[in-house]
Amino acid sequence: MKIKVLKNVFQRNDNAARENRELLDARGVTCVNLLGGAGAGKTSLLEAVIPVLRDSLRMGVLEGDLATTKDATRVDALGVPVIQLLTDGGCHLTATLVQQGLRRLPLDGLDMLLIENVGNPICPAGFDLGEHLRISVLSVTEGDDKAAKYPLLFKDADLIVLSKCDLQPLTDFDFNTVTRDLRRINRRAEILQTQARRAIGTEALATWLLDRCRPSSAASRE
Amino acid sequence: MKIKVLKNVFQRNDNAARENRELLDARGVTCVNLLGGAGAGKTSLLEAVIPVLRDSLRMGVLEGDLATTKDATRVDALGVPVIQLLTDGGCHLTATLVQQGLRRLPLDGLDMLLIENVGNPICPAGFDLGEHLRISVLSVTEGDDKAAKYPLLFKDADLIVLSKCDLQPLTDFDFNTVTRDLRRINRRAEILQTQARRAIGTEALATWLLDRCRPSSAASRE
Repeated sequence: MKIKVLKNVFQRNDNAARENRELLDARGVTCVNLLGGAGAGKTSLLEAVIPVLRDSLRMGVLEGDLATTKDATRVDALGVPVIQLLTDGGCHLTATLVQQGLRRLPLDGLDMLLIENVGNPICPAGFDLGEHLRISVLSVTEGDDKAAKYPLLFKDADLIVLSKCDLQPLTDFDFNTVTRDLRRINRRAEILQTQARRAIGTEALATWLLDRCRPSSAASRE
Repeated sequence: MKIKVLKNVFQRNDNAARENRELLDARGVTCVNLLGGAGAGKTSLLEAVIPVLRDSLRMGVLEGDLATTKDATRVDALGVPVIQLLTDGGCHLTATLVQQGLRRLPLDGLDMLLIENVGNPICPAGFDLGEHLRISVLSVTEGDDKAAKYPLLFKDADLIVLSKCDLQPLTDFDFNTVTRDLRRINRRAEILQTQARRAIGTEALATWLLDRCRPSSAASRE
């Protein structure tokens, strides 16, 4: 009985994810799911890349959190449409909750939708939201053992960002260790080092996003 | 139907938690559940306090992780009995898994059992393992907004450790902000600042643990 119910939960999520992707495809919106633990620096990365991309891409943001609208407030200050999705204690975003967010965004006027998932290195990775791309973030202050310890976070990522690299000299974080472990889990993802506070690596992140915004949506702006 | 099954999951966990607590009480073992996000510094705190307490208390450790035995290896080097509990992708420890760990530890020879939960700021807080005390850890590199954003992590804590405080000058972390938010969630917990790498604050943590090891178990050693 338990298995049947859990299957239904995943089935319902997958159905909603497919609907989300079809809707985003129809509107020519490229959707990115940003994953990582609490405090990995996901919102700071958004704050770094949105001002760089704002003139080239019409961007929208969905902010996932258990509580508070702190992150949506930070993104709102950047002048792009943002909706705060509150899970009310839930440990990950679901495609159903994203669906509610999509209804409140001006999709026809967007080229790219960035979804910042709940800060949690485990559960969000198991739920397709209807995104086209996944970016997984690991901060050097979390430790270089975290790729091996949290493989699901990195397995399906298209890009892996190692953040807060300016703090690396103050930690035991070893880039070779983490790169070796990441390559065992995921051979194809690019790995990018960033220092959002110094705007180092964030230009490369912005370029990565721009390159992956599909031609159809770029064309639709003309 | 879904609610009924979920109730059964929690009911089963609560039953196992009660059995664990009864067993620990019977053996005079004080049990501490250590919670926090990935990379909050939980294992480093264990590495700092176990050598201080080892001569006063007979300690055992259960290490919870999704994958790898890295943390158990670190604790094993300290010369105390340790069992690695692998959740196989699961996002938190359960009382049932802890029960299996208890069977493999020499409980009659222990005064204190430390359980390091899976690194996740959300799900572990919802599952009683049969512990007597909870310690929640937040590293300053995670950000001072995390108390407000992850209230469940701190709500039932007996002690809140703010870790990696040596890195605070390099962050925007504000102790007043986090203390104010923590006090809204939990009025009674002590709040302790630590720098495990410099052994600052860890002596106070060791004392806190020693003070809470119940007299019955201390007596049983004589």
